[in-house]
Amino acid sequence: MLYYLDLFGTLVFAISGVLTALDKKFDLVGSVVIGLITAVGGGTLRDVLIGRTPVGWMEDQWTLVAVLAGIVLSYLLKPWIIRLKRSMFLFDTLGIGVFTVLGVQKTLNTDLSLGVALLMGVVSAVFGGVIRDVLCNEVPLIFRRQIYASACLAGGLVYEGGLSLELSPLLISPLAIAVVVGIRYLSVRYNWSLSIPR
Amino acid sequence: MLYYLDLFGTLVFAISGVLTALDKKFDLVGSVVIGLITAVGGGTLRDVLIGRTPVGWMEDQWTLVAVLAGIVLSYLLKPWIIRLKRSMFLFDTLGIGVFTVLGVQKTLNTDLSLGVALLMGVVSAVFGGVIRDVLCNEVPLIFRRQIYASACLAGGLVYEGGLSLELSPLLISPLAIAVVVGIRYLSVRYNWSLSIPR
Amino acid sequence: MLYYLDLFGTLVFAISGVLTALDKKFDLVGSVVIGLITAVGGGTLRDVLIGRTPVGWMEDQWTLVAVLAGIVLSYLLKPWIIRLKRSMFLFDTLGIGVFTVLGVQKTLNTDLSLGVALLMGVVSAVFGGVIRDVLCNEVPLIFRRQIYASACLAGGLVYEGGLSLELSPLLISPLAIAVVVGIRYLSVRYNWSLSIPR
Repeated sequence: MLYYLDLFGTLVFAISGVLTALDKKFDLVGSVVIGLITAVGGGTLRDVLIGRTPVGWMEDQWTLVAVLAGIVLSYLLKPWIIRLKRSMFLFDTLGIGVFTVLGVQKTLNTDLSLGVALLMGVVSAVFGGVIRDVLCNEVPLIFRRQIYASACLAGGLVYEGGLSLELSPLLISPLAIAVVVGIRYLSVRYNWSLSIPR
Repeated sequence: MLYYLDLFGTLVFAISGVLTALDKKFDLVGSVVIGLITAVGGGTLRDVLIGRTPVGWMEDQWTLVAVLAGIVLSYLLKPWIIRLKRSMFLFDTLGIGVFTVLGVQKTLNTDLSLGVALLMGVVSAVFGGVIRDVLCNEVPLIFRRQIYASACLAGGLVYEGGLSLELSPLLISPLAIAVVVGIRYLSVRYNWSLSIPR
Repeated sequence: MLYYLDLFGTLVFAISGVLTALDKKFDLVGSVVIGLITAVGGGTLRDVLIGRTPVGWMEDQWTLVAVLAGIVLSYLLKPWIIRLKRSMFLFDTLGIGVFTVLGVQKTLNTDLSLGVALLMGVVSAVFGGVIRDVLCNEVPLIFRRQIYASACLAGGLVYEGGLSLELSPLLISPLAIAVVVGIRYLSVRYNWSLSIPR
């Protein structure tokens, strides 16, 4: 189940990457590269840091298929994409929730500590977007829109809390994803922010 | 033979990196760093992603010697470099052809799939330049001048096609390099582009 | 002893990262991420390149504690930080000295050559700052203020020279650190530069 959500998140992230690239007037190659990096960048960075190489997507053909599907879809959907913005927001948030939980799981599988796993969960979810922004020569969005990363942090904490209570991953994975989606939805709805008072 | 071409490509890429850095008015350290990264960045990223560490140039002293030679040469040649532009273009294109073929080969040696090897061939050839551009705070050139990466993709496909026909690498390596050089030459000569119609 | 200096350098680098981020008006998440990356980025890149994964700080909880302490301290000290600038400069320089020596040591431990170890010493010391600058969408400082990296290079050379004379690391580590601090101090005091005459 999580595996299919992972592929779905990958597809959604690829779409969001291509749309950003088209917005910057990149050509075909530029959009494909940015789509790919947005989709797999976070998980790739996590895998490299924890020493899980060759990185995950190299050994699972379906990830690349999902990226390709996302790229093709974004060209087909372009005319409707503005009307689809609300659905895209939901899909994207679901995507970061799934990426967070999988990032925490994969890091714990290599016997690293809970703190490191939490960090790697957030990295998996947000660094695809960070690398996309750096390549587009922009200051990364998450440094200014912090509820994005904080929502992942909260979801990761819920997941690890559930584990330490010895609850089943089948129960706590959807719960942690719901926490990410919920916090992000509420933060956008009510315009929350963590900016620093001066 | 390919090994010597690889060292030659490394030297040429180092020159092109130093010249970019001098153009941005970087100092000695800046130019050396940019020269080094332009020359070995693509292969380094490939090695890290496929888990071939320590990365290649760390275990072959001649790569660093080629980089150093490139750096020294660019200071010596600076006054003539504009007149040398045409040769530089040829050398640079030869360089990306060689890097593509070697990138595909090295990835296939680690038992990864043809699709991944093709991607890693392109990464080896173009990501030195991408990292150079990011460090110089520019939008990477290849996202706007797409025939560059597409030429590598075509060369990689020819190489893998030849392999699947069980032709000898001695035959298909020069063929694939010629395809990269040819496509790039023609695309610049006739101003081809893959930009997206709106 | 070096270990405690390493934690101290990590704390100081985290402070310098957070202050840069606050200067750019990043929010809480942005400052924490930049603080973390400035502190551990150089060593992380070195570990990834030489194949020492999971990267060092993942297996030593105290590094993350030092980063957290640095982040908390920078919020507390913010009002005084301008007056503390002189001490910060000393601490920062001490930090790059320690990072250089440790970078050289750790690379030699993996049986790589003296030249590669020297490079990795400099990378350990300066690439945290380079990644910080790239994420803040700035041209990396060290490309324009070259005595910074050159001081590390000199310190690394002294350390390796001492090793080849079979002197004890207990003697040459402080000597190499002193060389880094001394060169950097003098270069700032007398406004040295290595810029290229035109």
